[in-house]
Amino acid sequence: MTYCVGLSLVDGLVLLSDTRTNAGVDNISIFSKMHIFQIPDERFIALLTAGNLAIAQAVVNLLHEGIDSDERVETLYSVPTMFRAAQLVGEAVRRVYRVDGEAMQAQNVTFDVSILLGGEIKGRKRARLFQIYSAGNFIEATPDTPFLQIGEHKYGKPILDRVVQYDTDLYDGVKLVLVSMDSTLRSNLTVGMPIDLLVYRRGALVPELRRRITEEDEYFRAIRERWSEALRETYRAMPRPNWTG
Amino acid sequence: MTYCVGLSLVDGLVLLSDTRTNAGVDNISIFSKMHIFQIPDERFIALLTAGNLAIAQAVVNLLHEGIDSDERVETLYSVPTMFRAAQLVGEAVRRVYRVDGEAMQAQNVTFDVSILLGGEIKGRKRARLFQIYSAGNFIEATPDTPFLQIGEHKYGKPILDRVVQYDTDLYDGVKLVLVSMDSTLRSNLTVGMPIDLLVYRRGALVPELRRRITEEDEYFRAIRERWSEALRETYRAMPRPNWTG
Repeated sequence: MTYCVGLSLVDGLVLLSDTRTNAGVDNISIFSKMHIFQIPDERFIALLTAGNLAIAQAVVNLLHEGIDSDERVETLYSVPTMFRAAQLVGEAVRRVYRVDGEAMQAQNVTFDVSILLGGEIKGRKRARLFQIYSAGNFIEATPDTPFLQIGEHKYGKPILDRVVQYDTDLYDGVKLVLVSMDSTLRSNLTVGMPIDLLVYRRGALVPELRRRITEEDEYFRAIRERWSEALRETYRAMPRPNWTG
Repeated sequence: MTYCVGLSLVDGLVLLSDTRTNAGVDNISIFSKMHIFQIPDERFIALLTAGNLAIAQAVVNLLHEGIDSDERVETLYSVPTMFRAAQLVGEAVRRVYRVDGEAMQAQNVTFDVSILLGGEIKGRKRARLFQIYSAGNFIEATPDTPFLQIGEHKYGKPILDRVVQYDTDLYDGVKLVLVSMDSTLRSNLTVGMPIDLLVYRRGALVPELRRRITEEDEYFRAIRERWSEALRETYRAMPRPNWTG
């Protein structure tokens, strides 16, 4: 399993992914699920993947090597807009399905992949965040719901539902996705450390912060402890009901 | 969908269930999922059900009418121990499977039911809490993990993971299951109000508190608002990271 979350805020994007891959609970590895496609000062695109690792890697490879359409070969380095980037990722997913789908079905393996695509291309003046499904179709985050999640999304959703708003500051957003990830890490063993964080400020065309956070990271440890302690204190401070019978 | 949660604490049991049943999102009804079997001062048993409503009702009916085994007819009113009660519920699930399982399978309907069983029978001096699966087998809550959940359990699990302990006071437990239910209600439309709460104090052999909580309930509204506000304040008060580049 995997947990990836992306925020599309007024100031830019916050992206976070775990690194655990597993084929059964006795075969666990670390794979980065965050893939970067950038030309400094021209485009910055990040791809976060969940689902079957073979499919995800095939999609990422196709997007690097290029997909031919109408006598051109397109990659995420050449697409003119983020919308076209989302279409291209969807097309890559469909091509992998055409190659591998039937054989996987014959082995009763579900064709399961989902992708977060975030970034900005020069000239458009805004960062965008998309979620691409196994069928290659996609949705975009909007100011009403400025976050998207893939993989094991339920444990970490309540805090996002309650707090994230479009005008949340980028580094407040960082705190929120770390809390959301922490809830998921605690409840699902197949989501695991280290985690990869990326902060992108709108207009910058280069990432503002990219960091691999390990178990030893002091800030993340402080966030985890403080959050747990605050929840315990909050619940202690709430009055008991005065219901009877 | 459904969300039911039970705490098995040193002082007794706290049980909470929602009441929404749905066959598709356009066919929503209210059904209590909490079923009581009691003989005052002799036994108190509560059953919370999730999954297919027809199976759940068939199981509850069987437990009222009795299951014949070894020339006796047993009901939850006659079983001598809570362990035997759990076995009887498991047997009821298996009988329903024998009657309905094949026909359901032919219609591609999963035989899906899960049950929380809590209570106490005179002479045993302790309340017990079990979870019975679709196969009729079961587990029991222990001091290490004093809560059990059925149905849509993920959204409401982080708070329980972080805070519930075996020596938590019963009415602190009430606060916790209400917060856990609130997180679930916010994130999954197929879990809905009103909710049914039950508090049972060990040794009492009658429920200490039984209450249907509606949207208008002042205490529940206060808990919901306070919790949301506290989460927002906590996250605001946490320092931002001082990571760079």
